[in-house]
Amino acid sequence: MRLSQASDFALRILVHLGQTRQPETVDGLSRRLGLSKSHVMKIVAQLGRAGIIATTRGRGGGLTLKKDPAEVRLGAVVREMEADLGVVACLQHEPGDCVFLPRCALKHAMAQATRAFLDSLDRQTLADMIIGTQPARIDPPAEAV
Amino acid sequence: MRLSQASDFALRILVHLGQTRQPETVDGLSRRLGLSKSHVMKIVAQLGRAGIIATTRGRGGGLTLKKDPAEVRLGAVVREMEADLGVVACLQHEPGDCVFLPRCALKHAMAQATRAFLDSLDRQTLADMIIGTQPARIDPPAEAV
Repeated sequence: MRLSQASDFALRILVHLGQTRQPETVDGLSRRLGLSKSHVMKIVAQLGRAGIIATTRGRGGGLTLKKDPAEVRLGAVVREMEADLGVVACLQHEPGDCVFLPRCALKHAMAQATRAFLDSLDRQTLADMIIGTQPARIDPPAEAV
Repeated sequence: MRLSQASDFALRILVHLGQTRQPETVDGLSRRLGLSKSHVMKIVAQLGRAGIIATTRGRGGGLTLKKDPAEVRLGAVVREMEADLGVVACLQHEPGDCVFLPRCALKHAMAQATRAFLDSLDRQTLADMIIGTQPARIDPPAEAV
């Protein structure tokens, strides 16, 4: 069972922005978190569209959190970043066919478990993560793919 | 967010075995459920090792449920079939490195959400699925990969 890297990296970026509390550049985030620049660019664009981070242009500008971290629930970030939350084929955007459709209790059980996963994440805020996580180490690892 | 096909297909096979209540062959399961023979072979071997299904040899033999479906919790099947339940890199068997390790609240939040997912599945038994799911359609779809 895997989340997409987009969710994982988005949460790391948000925690880091919340910890430094200063405008960061794509280059800076990439170096500091050990993530590829192209990944960081895509993810900050998506977080920007979702209204979670803001970009200020010009001198001293950069990427900052737009929302109060206490108001950002982890489930909301994951819902925003995951292209498809369907854990099995029949729950995906382009559902696979199956001999048990349309009346399948497994489908409901999986949908319910996914809600339980997201509900658990919704009980945690970005503010909790910023406090409970050490500042990014100075020696970033190479991006793990 | 995705489960492995192994979990998905294992649950379909178990529901079908519980519905027909008669010994089935790998060939028969493959045709009836629209899954490749090689997938079915691997999955029934794993379910056999886990003591969830039994194989009887000889005439009239085949694959059957070994446990009472009311005693088989869905979470147990998924734990058995998933090669790795780590939803993010740091929770996987070969954990990826990250600048926030070792003290990271995100890691705990993700582990907790995964437990919530599995706990939700554990509240459902195979017996519930057998009753709540229609018998496999006669026109199996081609395997969706």
